[in-house]
Amino acid sequence: MAIFDALPPSVSIYEVSPRDGLQNESAQVATHAKVRLIEALIEAGLKRIEVTSFVSAKWVPQMADADQVCRMVEKPEGVCFSALVPNARGLDRALAGGIDEAAVFLSASETHNRKNVNKSVAATLLAFDDVIAPARRAGMQVRGYVSTVWGCPYEGAVDPEAALRIAHELLSRGCYQVSLGDTIGVGTPLQTRRILEVFLREIPAEKIALHLHDTRGTALANVLVGLEMGITTYDSSVGGLGGCPYAPGAAGNLATEDLAYTLAGMGVDTGLDLEKIWRAGQVAEAIVGRELPGKVHKAGIRSLAH
Amino acid sequence: MAIFDALPPSVSIYEVSPRDGLQNESAQVATHAKVRLIEALIEAGLKRIEVTSFVSAKWVPQMADADQVCRMVEKPEGVCFSALVPNARGLDRALAGGIDEAAVFLSASETHNRKNVNKSVAATLLAFDDVIAPARRAGMQVRGYVSTVWGCPYEGAVDPEAALRIAHELLSRGCYQVSLGDTIGVGTPLQTRRILEVFLREIPAEKIALHLHDTRGTALANVLVGLEMGITTYDSSVGGLGGCPYAPGAAGNLATEDLAYTLAGMGVDTGLDLEKIWRAGQVAEAIVGRELPGKVHKAGIRSLAH
Repeated sequence: MAIFDALPPSVSIYEVSPRDGLQNESAQVATHAKVRLIEALIEAGLKRIEVTSFVSAKWVPQMADADQVCRMVEKPEGVCFSALVPNARGLDRALAGGIDEAAVFLSASETHNRKNVNKSVAATLLAFDDVIAPARRAGMQVRGYVSTVWGCPYEGAVDPEAALRIAHELLSRGCYQVSLGDTIGVGTPLQTRRILEVFLREIPAEKIALHLHDTRGTALANVLVGLEMGITTYDSSVGGLGGCPYAPGAAGNLATEDLAYTLAGMGVDTGLDLEKIWRAGQVAEAIVGRELPGKVHKAGIRSLAH
Repeated sequence: MAIFDALPPSVSIYEVSPRDGLQNESAQVATHAKVRLIEALIEAGLKRIEVTSFVSAKWVPQMADADQVCRMVEKPEGVCFSALVPNARGLDRALAGGIDEAAVFLSASETHNRKNVNKSVAATLLAFDDVIAPARRAGMQVRGYVSTVWGCPYEGAVDPEAALRIAHELLSRGCYQVSLGDTIGVGTPLQTRRILEVFLREIPAEKIALHLHDTRGTALANVLVGLEMGITTYDSSVGGLGGCPYAPGAAGNLATEDLAYTLAGMGVDTGLDLEKIWRAGQVAEAIVGRELPGKVHKAGIRSLAH
């Protein structure tokens, strides 16, 4: 058999629960609760954590305390904090907050991008000149999110070549990595292979991350395709917190516990302590005050013993 | 890339919700509700449905109405009804009920088998002589379940060679197919590959089915490995109903909707109508009266439009 003959020895998990996970919570989460979550994530071994967003509090009230979060949380050696940075004002705040990495974001679909940031894709890319180069000069690294690569809630199918062109723009402007998003969780494995084939013809695997949503249960199956094709960074969120604007109780972000459990079972090192990552999911659940959709999260800590 | 170069053009889904799905429900489900579920499954295009179990009502009270279910449900041309048949008495009842296929079951783990049927594996196999050969003589086909192949809740790791020997026993006694169960949902893809390598060295792929539980979210990733290795029968349950004795809300059986959605997205024919299979999941949820864990089920019917 050809499968799994070249599994990567290790994978980097990029944790998004404090930002992508929380940003759509309607009830304001207390700053100290966010800090507690971030501390639990660090304790579990996560090295790349998206801690907040410097978008305007007018648009995302949940992230209005971004500056306080940065002040309150202690960052140990070897941990990288990232934050969404939409503009020059956000960059100033991120720098003042001691953030290591700025994340910029846009959509592979024009309609989704306009609904999200009220600009065309081309205008969004141009505006990144106020963030990416200045951030680099100030010593930060910059990561780019390309959302709706697997499909758009407004336009339906998305051309992988269009997403590829955007990825090239991001990389040439100074991003070290592009995170390709299945924003609405429609992706199936054959599609994932086809998308990655398009990208890997022109972009090295280490510059690509996958940000997969589990809305239809396919995220881990898509990760498997990524692994087989050499992708070694995966975005996820403890408990599967966040990322789904659809039905109540439906899944959005891939759960970090499910990802870490699967990788551990395949002998792929993530540097995570499974039990502690499960506990961080309990913290996430406690601070949003409702059940989270992650599978390992729901199955309970005893389920990790196997 | 070597992956997905030999996807099977079609896959057979073996629906277990009326039996495996319902058998652990503590509140008695009305017979007419079970019939309604079976009818919804047929309407969605399922051709192989495990409709009930002829185990003693003393052990599984939920299946006490097996004879009535058989009497009340109408079976269209081309649909195969199966039922669990533990002994000669059960076989008589299954034959009287017009069941097409008997299913026998045992565990790859001695301890699990003893806890489940109060007999050793060897004694269980011997007792199958009262079922398999007589069932075949009466014109039924017989399927064998081997549970705990990926791991046992009591013994931990299970030797695939032990499971293979049991599968050989079942096939040589007259089973047309063995369904290998990840009963506690611990399997990860590399393990699935290793187990299937052991089996496929000696047993043709069409004689093997996978019965995967989604307790830790890995079922679809394991299906993917099965597909790549030529397995074309998968057991599942609408809404992810049943199969989990662990935590409340945790997932057990792989959800038929998630499986069918994924296969459809990969161009693998299942003969199912996705919208109608989603509706059958709504019926399942209504008759047990609580939320089911399937992802597509939770994401809602609109999510199928993509």
